[in-house]
Amino acid sequence: MNLSDFVLDTPNFPQKDIMFRDISPLLKNHQAFDEAINQMHPPIERVDYWVGVESRGFMFAGALAQKFGGGMIMIRKKGKLPPPVITYAYDLEYGSDALEIKQGSGKVVIVDDVLATGGTLKAANELCQQAGYSVLGHSVLIDLCYVHQQTPFYINSTAVHSVLKYDTP
Amino acid sequence: MNLSDFVLDTPNFPQKDIMFRDISPLLKNHQAFDEAINQMHPPIERVDYWVGVESRGFMFAGALAQKFGGGMIMIRKKGKLPPPVITYAYDLEYGSDALEIKQGSGKVVIVDDVLATGGTLKAANELCQQAGYSVLGHSVLIDLCYVHQQTPFYINSTAVHSVLKYDTP
Repeated sequence: MNLSDFVLDTPNFPQKDIMFRDISPLLKNHQAFDEAINQMHPPIERVDYWVGVESRGFMFAGALAQKFGGGMIMIRKKGKLPPPVITYAYDLEYGSDALEIKQGSGKVVIVDDVLATGGTLKAANELCQQAGYSVLGHSVLIDLCYVHQQTPFYINSTAVHSVLKYDTP
Repeated sequence: MNLSDFVLDTPNFPQKDIMFRDISPLLKNHQAFDEAINQMHPPIERVDYWVGVESRGFMFAGALAQKFGGGMIMIRKKGKLPPPVITYAYDLEYGSDALEIKQGSGKVVIVDDVLATGGTLKAANELCQQAGYSVLGHSVLIDLCYVHQQTPFYINSTAVHSVLKYDTP
């Protein structure tokens, strides 16, 4: 099964000259989604928690926790989790954003759908550390290598684990 | 296992006099999350797709698809899915909102974390029907019965399936 067959290239979304990778067909196909979840497990032994980055990271973190054991933790956009929370603000290309998580401890893998610039994943990594978690690694379904232009992409000293790599738009 | 032990009552969030039901502890505990997913399967035989409502519906739909078979479909907020999409606008207490989905066919169950007024779930139901899907039912983890004051809560002629019911704030 070639998982990239289930990702639909959609030009000019969300804006002109951006090639959007639509994972809707992959999610709809049980075998493809299942195989994606299998391959998203990084080569790590014991994961206490799968941390999903809102919002598409949620479905992968939920499925990974369901399949491989361990709990699930939400990283949400600012203002969505009840206090007390840890907040981490970070810069975007235009403006800024902030992510939040509840304090805790244990070994986590941070999960999202796509790695592009790496800004969100780096922010999620900082946030988890500030909240008290030990970050074992990061896992994404899709790595847009041509955006960050560093393959593999490292966060601290750990390479981001990915299933599908795209070298060109 | 009493799943309500894993839901944390948080007063005055997101605003004064609102009792927020925080499901973070339930998600973090693998056994509790797994039991919640077991109980969220409605008494229905064959589900083609689990439709998750953005964003907390995503993790339940992802876990249900992983555990019970069937694919997963995203209902997203306006502007997040690439075209072509079906859009359904609906009124909120203050202002309005719109949900979007890709066109398709098959038998679906719509999944979300909480049933409160029922506005979002009703909108999701309309959206799925307009998009071509046959809606077998709706499933939520938490039913805030005291908000909608109709137990069970019907959408068309189907009662919303829920795991935890709260009769008072």
